Amino acid sequence: MNLMTTSSFDLKNYLSSSRALVDEALSEYLPSEKSDPAILHKAMRYSVFCGGKRLRPILALTAADVCGGDIRDAMPAACALEMIHTFSLIHDDLPALDNDDLRRGRPTCHKVFGEAMAILAGDALFAMGYETITRHTANIGPEALANVLKTISIAVGSHGMVGGQVADLENEGNSNLDIQTIQSIHARKTGALLKASLLSGAIVASATPAQHAALEIYGEKIGLAFQIADDLLDILGDEQILGKPIGSDEKNQKATYPKLLGIDGAKEAARRATDEALSALEIFGRKAEPLKALAEYMIDRKS
Amino acid sequence: MNLMTTSSFDLKNYLSSSRALVDEALSEYLPSEKSDPAILHKAMRYSVFCGGKRLRPILALTAADVCGGDIRDAMPAACALEMIHTFSLIHDDLPALDNDDLRRGRPTCHKVFGEAMAILAGDALFAMGYETITRHTANIGPEALANVLKTISIAVGSHGMVGGQVADLENEGNSNLDIQTIQSIHARKTGALLKASLLSGAIVASATPAQHAALEIYGEKIGLAFQIADDLLDILGDEQILGKPIGSDEKNQKATYPKLLGIDGAKEAARRATDEALSALEIFGRKAEPLKALAEYMIDRKS
Repeated sequence: MNLMTTSSFDLKNYLSSSRALVDEALSEYLPSEKSDPAILHKAMRYSVFCGGKRLRPILALTAADVCGGDIRDAMPAACALEMIHTFSLIHDDLPALDNDDLRRGRPTCHKVFGEAMAILAGDALFAMGYETITRHTANIGPEALANVLKTISIAVGSHGMVGGQVADLENEGNSNLDIQTIQSIHARKTGALLKASLLSGAIVASATPAQHAALEIYGEKIGLAFQIADDLLDILGDEQILGKPIGSDEKNQKATYPKLLGIDGAKEAARRATDEALSALEIFGRKAEPLKALAEYMIDRKS
Repeated sequence: MNLMTTSSFDLKNYLSSSRALVDEALSEYLPSEKSDPAILHKAMRYSVFCGGKRLRPILALTAADVCGGDIRDAMPAACALEMIHTFSLIHDDLPALDNDDLRRGRPTCHKVFGEAMAILAGDALFAMGYETITRHTANIGPEALANVLKTISIAVGSHGMVGGQVADLENEGNSNLDIQTIQSIHARKTGALLKASLLSGAIVASATPAQHAALEIYGEKIGLAFQIADDLLDILGDEQILGKPIGSDEKNQKATYPKLLGIDGAKEAARRATDEALSALEIFGRKAEPLKALAEYMIDRKS
């Protein structure tokens, strides 16, 4: 590791310029609000353009870049991952699930468009993710394309993101979970799609098996660090910056890392996971700077 | 057309043997009820194995066969289409949408597993559809694979099935729709996935452009006939055979073909659409028999 290099990398600028590229592409790929049915496309765009950090697309683009690919080739998959992430947030916020009124400081999709439209906007964003990948295939071989679609499908499905969400619901109110169970829930609920983002970028960039394996470990470790940081933010975060109330895990008697390990123990676990993520990047040499900075950002973020 | 040939074809046997093949494959592709999270996989299997006619998979297999392909190569896409169809039924039945307690005579997914699980079981079935196609690719070139995924995604998304569902919701209680609007809603809501089923089979079988075009017209026409038959069943059907109450369109002041054209006019329109579907099949010669019989079945079915 070269900490000097890492710290001199201008992450803030990297995040904002990457985000601008992603937002531009998302706006191009998503149907216009004028296109029929207008209300559905409004709901889809409302939720996609609701202040997201674009972490998943940025991970996909950065992974493509670090493997020697062109980030433009990874853009359709990157945007698809954001659409799929947004679909999962819309459904998670529904009254039958987390029943959240606010997301990033703004009313959730079902508060604005009603429950029926929120369910369907989620479904349509999911489909639009696949449509985006399969429509914009310039410079991507059909084999890579099929591989990206497989990677994402497995990450989303009943053994991935949706399965993690179910396991989370099933264990609601059970504050006695052990660390392995918590980890298994989060590895599926959030980790799987973060990892799939990196791997999608790697596949599009024709990564070597060693590069692919390195990004897989990196993805697992930052996924873990991300979740611990999330749990910590729910205790130590600033409600204004978060755009939602803190203390909800405590209120919902949720088993969290800080609850099991204490605040300092959780911070140490996040640091350890981040260090392991950084170690996995050695294979990329100096090119790893953005991924290193992103790993640090995962545990230092304020929202 | 050779009506003698059509009528001598044993559709009943064809449907039941195809259905058995599809059910076997579905059971193989879907995660076991023992696999974690068990409750999610139970909900997914409950809804998939709830007495469906398997029309979409049978159309996909039959289209592959008529284009000279091997039906085994079309099985993953065929089953994916049934999973996606089931996902759409689960979400349509939700309290926020059609609020239906019964589907094919059995309690709907959310009545058995609760609303949260029904939403997530739908999401997981959608993902599992893509996963199934991308995991079982023997004898399918990656280009055909990507093409199938694109065809299905567009058929499902905001300009297809989900868009049609939104347009339907938006026009609820508006019994003054013209025939073009009704047709446009149904072409998206049900027609798009029926057509995508045929085209998926065609793509897997490396259909010629002429075969592809013929199946496209056939798909459009049987989709139309299917919907008119659906509207007629809601007036003339047998509740026991249907597994749900009739008269719901009248109760919900829904604009339907019989309402606009009268019962006889609707029957004539369905017949006309079916004849046009049959004409499109001429290119396939004697091989078209199952598709001809399926077209007749669409308007003669009792459920």
